[in-house]
Amino acid sequence: MPNTIEDRLSAEGITLPDAPAPAANYVPFVKTGNLVVISGQLPMADGAVKYLGLLGDNVDVEEGVAAARLCAINLLAQLKTACGGDLSKVTRVVRLGGFVAATPDFGKHPAVVNGASDLMAAIFGDAGAHARAAVGVASLPFGASVEVEGMFEIKE
Amino acid sequence: MPNTIEDRLSAEGITLPDAPAPAANYVPFVKTGNLVVISGQLPMADGAVKYLGLLGDNVDVEEGVAAARLCAINLLAQLKTACGGDLSKVTRVVRLGGFVAATPDFGKHPAVVNGASDLMAAIFGDAGAHARAAVGVASLPFGASVEVEGMFEIKE
Amino acid sequence: MPNTIEDRLSAEGITLPDAPAPAANYVPFVKTGNLVVISGQLPMADGAVKYLGLLGDNVDVEEGVAAARLCAINLLAQLKTACGGDLSKVTRVVRLGGFVAATPDFGKHPAVVNGASDLMAAIFGDAGAHARAAVGVASLPFGASVEVEGMFEIKE
Repeated sequence: MPNTIEDRLSAEGITLPDAPAPAANYVPFVKTGNLVVISGQLPMADGAVKYLGLLGDNVDVEEGVAAARLCAINLLAQLKTACGGDLSKVTRVVRLGGFVAATPDFGKHPAVVNGASDLMAAIFGDAGAHARAAVGVASLPFGASVEVEGMFEIKE
Repeated sequence: MPNTIEDRLSAEGITLPDAPAPAANYVPFVKTGNLVVISGQLPMADGAVKYLGLLGDNVDVEEGVAAARLCAINLLAQLKTACGGDLSKVTRVVRLGGFVAATPDFGKHPAVVNGASDLMAAIFGDAGAHARAAVGVASLPFGASVEVEGMFEIKE
Repeated sequence: MPNTIEDRLSAEGITLPDAPAPAANYVPFVKTGNLVVISGQLPMADGAVKYLGLLGDNVDVEEGVAAARLCAINLLAQLKTACGGDLSKVTRVVRLGGFVAATPDFGKHPAVVNGASDLMAAIFGDAGAHARAAVGVASLPFGASVEVEGMFEIKE
């Protein structure tokens, strides 16, 4: 694993985007104590929501994984802002909440949300190991197929 | 913005109800450290759940906004109890979790949950800016169209 | 109520299983400060997911209650590991998140999630009183009918 978080992002081929603006009247993250709570992120890139639709219908697991990874990239962009630009302040990924827009007969939500979980492990190593809930919802904002929220522990 | 939280509630035309009793074997809120975690609130008024149904089906966005606002009023009622009657102890709205009962093709969850978010901003000002997840679920207790849970930071 | 937590587990006829392994690339729990955040648990027993399907369709409320109770048993198994084997370190059940795979017309989510809430009350007494969200989702991992995640407060 590359030594620094910035090097690991490069190794994943990731340039963090500008942190996406929230879709409504709230803020991207709140700090309370040494916790950072980040709003649900959609699979947005270049200002548009990607991977629209439902798992089990028009979105396959591979696309769902890519969508979850994109949500996680946006979480990292928000987190970097929360850390004043220095992701090495992150001491633990505490929890990811993964919402997968899915049909009633879909069952591979864990594989989909791994798109986010795997990236956290790749970027933060042991500190990237997190608790998680992965569930299948009826629909998501703007027709997105995946939404991921997060809670992180940081040092001052 | 009026000076006190009680004045802002009045300006919004809100008289906080008695905090609704939980629908089952749990409590309306738990304090841990300086956090208050409040159970999912339904759009209840006068002891009945209002705005029954699904967004994208029989409930339109305007009604969904009203339902979310009613959930938020009930959150505030619980929060006031958690603060011993003094909402000025609230230092931050940390997170709202907005669950919108919706059809698979519905996409305006952010607009619906704004009914709750806008009220927090109106009542708490800068301290009302919160992280948020808004998702579309298959169904909610008693046929409610919206449920909102919350996490708040308070001072002792 | 029996005096010790282990006695109360016995009185409920529960032998805690080995803590189930997560279904994907994450960990069963994370400790941050004096909080333990536990990943969403499925109704697994003997290595298999039980009570497959949807409330409102092929799974009735009684079966849903049993599924939620089984999720809670798995939460307790993870929590015991998080506490180094000593559940008397638990000072409060802070929050349960109950996800019920359900049809759009189902409304008895609170009764289902009580399968988990009632067990927490039976095992922890006053410290078992928790905040809760109970919602109906479109589908859950591996076709499970219920998933429950939890946040707990412990002493060092």
